[in-house]
Amino acid sequence: MNVSSIGGLFLSKKEREFRKQLSNVLGFNPGNVELYRTALSHRSVREGADENNERLEFLGDAVLGAVVAHYLFMKYPYKDEGFLTEMRSKMVNRNQLNSIAVKIGLRRITLFNKLDNSLKVSQIFGNTLEALVGAVYLDKGFDETYKWVARQIIRSHLYLTELEHIDINLKNKLYGWANKNGKMLEFETISEKLESGRRFFTIGAYIDNELIAQGEGFSKKNASQIAAQKAIEKLNIT
Amino acid sequence: MNVSSIGGLFLSKKEREFRKQLSNVLGFNPGNVELYRTALSHRSVREGADENNERLEFLGDAVLGAVVAHYLFMKYPYKDEGFLTEMRSKMVNRNQLNSIAVKIGLRRITLFNKLDNSLKVSQIFGNTLEALVGAVYLDKGFDETYKWVARQIIRSHLYLTELEHIDINLKNKLYGWANKNGKMLEFETISEKLESGRRFFTIGAYIDNELIAQGEGFSKKNASQIAAQKAIEKLNIT
Repeated sequence: MNVSSIGGLFLSKKEREFRKQLSNVLGFNPGNVELYRTALSHRSVREGADENNERLEFLGDAVLGAVVAHYLFMKYPYKDEGFLTEMRSKMVNRNQLNSIAVKIGLRRITLFNKLDNSLKVSQIFGNTLEALVGAVYLDKGFDETYKWVARQIIRSHLYLTELEHIDINLKNKLYGWANKNGKMLEFETISEKLESGRRFFTIGAYIDNELIAQGEGFSKKNASQIAAQKAIEKLNIT
Repeated sequence: MNVSSIGGLFLSKKEREFRKQLSNVLGFNPGNVELYRTALSHRSVREGADENNERLEFLGDAVLGAVVAHYLFMKYPYKDEGFLTEMRSKMVNRNQLNSIAVKIGLRRITLFNKLDNSLKVSQIFGNTLEALVGAVYLDKGFDETYKWVARQIIRSHLYLTELEHIDINLKNKLYGWANKNGKMLEFETISEKLESGRRFFTIGAYIDNELIAQGEGFSKKNASQIAAQKAIEKLNIT
């Protein structure tokens, strides 16, 4: 038998396998399968804005940001806003999301054009993960999404106690890369202003005098960490 | 009578007035008043990270971002991610939030040190509004916060049809300011790369050859609009 029936619909073997893999990745049975199919469809296979996963990625990125903000708010009741912002940035940056996406199995079920050589395949899956969060949110609501993200993403794949201490490593990592590649790295303050009575810094990461990325924050340390991290993402340093 | 009793507690006249104003601003009766008092307390009156509104501002900023993302996702079912990102940025930028905060009456009930001359008072209230969203979220949950933001912030104070068309005005506004102040304004592409098969631009707004702000996006138009808007915020152009 290559077909089975759900609600009177006969499903092909391929479709049944897709649904099984989807349920495995999610850890629950999805309500609206089409929503998830959209979340898993890269624009290289579906051009229309209402057909591929880019709109869901926009939504999921925002929902994930709110979930992680709440999670950190609860976990660290005495830490200030600068610490929380930095932790979130370490948890949900591009590299982390790409890596988590592959670990939870999105490489297998993401639909994209495998013949398109212009695609940086390693970067597709983090976006897909964000779109998936958007789909879970629309399918199950915010509270269920919170639980799902906390369980399947944060507790399963992010080691917060380690992340608390990696701040020094981001700048070091970038310096290491620059050194290895014979490039000059500098951090410079682009602007400093008062915001609500606090000093607010914008710091740029320059490589060979070219501005690569900038970070903002209420301390030079925070701002330069964020600049370093963005530079690492832009340069695809792994 | 200068005192009244709630749950056996006698409240001073001042406290009763605070609660009345708070309910007026919110449009509902708050469950946990202390949460809202924290949301309304600027660091100039409460130093501790767990006492002033900066942690709630972090949370509220994220929740507001998710609510607005969902609102736009529903309102514009055929618009792409670039449009949605730009619209959100126009709706919840610093200037908009400051202006909405004053309109809904936050100036009167925000607690801050009025003798501190280093405070840019006009910028406090937007942050307070974000913190208030954080408090509503913790007090009432995400779904109620969605309804509250949609009713009290978006539908009451943001004219989306107008915002759709103001994109040209942001760059024009900045050019106007530069012209009036004898400064040279230029937009330059800082970087261009492929991300998931799409061209991704970083564009800087330079005033007298100094980088003031940068914007990112999948089109030069979007990226330079965002750069213009950030520059307008940084320079406090009204």
